[in-house]
Amino acid sequence: MTIHNLTLNHHTGMKFSTEINGFPLILNGATLTNDKPAGISPKKLLLAAITGCTAMDITSLLEKMRVHYTDFSIVIEAPLGEEHPKTYLKYDLVYKIRIDNADRDKMEKAVNLSMSKYCGVSAMLGKSAPVNFRIEYL
Amino acid sequence: MTIHNLTLNHHTGMKFSTEINGFPLILNGATLTNDKPAGISPKKLLLAAITGCTAMDITSLLEKMRVHYTDFSIVIEAPLGEEHPKTYLKYDLVYKIRIDNADRDKMEKAVNLSMSKYCGVSAMLGKSAPVNFRIEYL
Repeated sequence: MTIHNLTLNHHTGMKFSTEINGFPLILNGATLTNDKPAGISPKKLLLAAITGCTAMDITSLLEKMRVHYTDFSIVIEAPLGEEHPKTYLKYDLVYKIRIDNADRDKMEKAVNLSMSKYCGVSAMLGKSAPVNFRIEYL
Repeated sequence: MTIHNLTLNHHTGMKFSTEINGFPLILNGATLTNDKPAGISPKKLLLAAITGCTAMDITSLLEKMRVHYTDFSIVIEAPLGEEHPKTYLKYDLVYKIRIDNADRDKMEKAVNLSMSKYCGVSAMLGKSAPVNFRIEYL
């Protein structure tokens, strides 16, 4: 059994720091005088987590399938509910990629495998709101 | 309705970058030759998200209650299942804080309010696995 753990330390105000795999991560929930956020906010980390998780599946699967691609990115949009606790109502992911026409079925296979079998973050967040996705070929 | 969004861009291998609130975040799922992770991995971002979310609630609530405290941190442990998709089986949070004995009930109130009402990340992740917590007074 693998146990993941971390410690989040308070600095001042709404500023906190932690380390993941030895790499520093600073969070800050404060708002600057120009109304801009002062740093990375916790909730949006979920969007980085779900896109990062499935993106790593895709790169790994396409490599195994020996598919060449460029310009791979994932765009995510998630509307936030207005009642406390404020939770995402759904997740809409768009996989963008430049790939040979002949390899599109492999890309579709990779995305479906990630979303149905491999991506743990999607499986976890999918328990609280639907995770929708589509591919956009560049 | 607030819509949160981000774009995750592929670099090379398992390395990706994004921005949250204009602040850069680099993810890397690769493993170095010494078996150490090459960067921040997506799944562990969930642990930063849930601790960050409730930690910001606590600092905000204690400030409103005019409670003085120092040495505030949150330690989280989460065992990871072994079947695909690999998901966390539970979340165990320990709130550590140095606070006057007379203010302990306020800390307990703040933690309970965060976990029952305010912390959206806990509400979301709590749909897939139990979120347990306790306070340790320093």
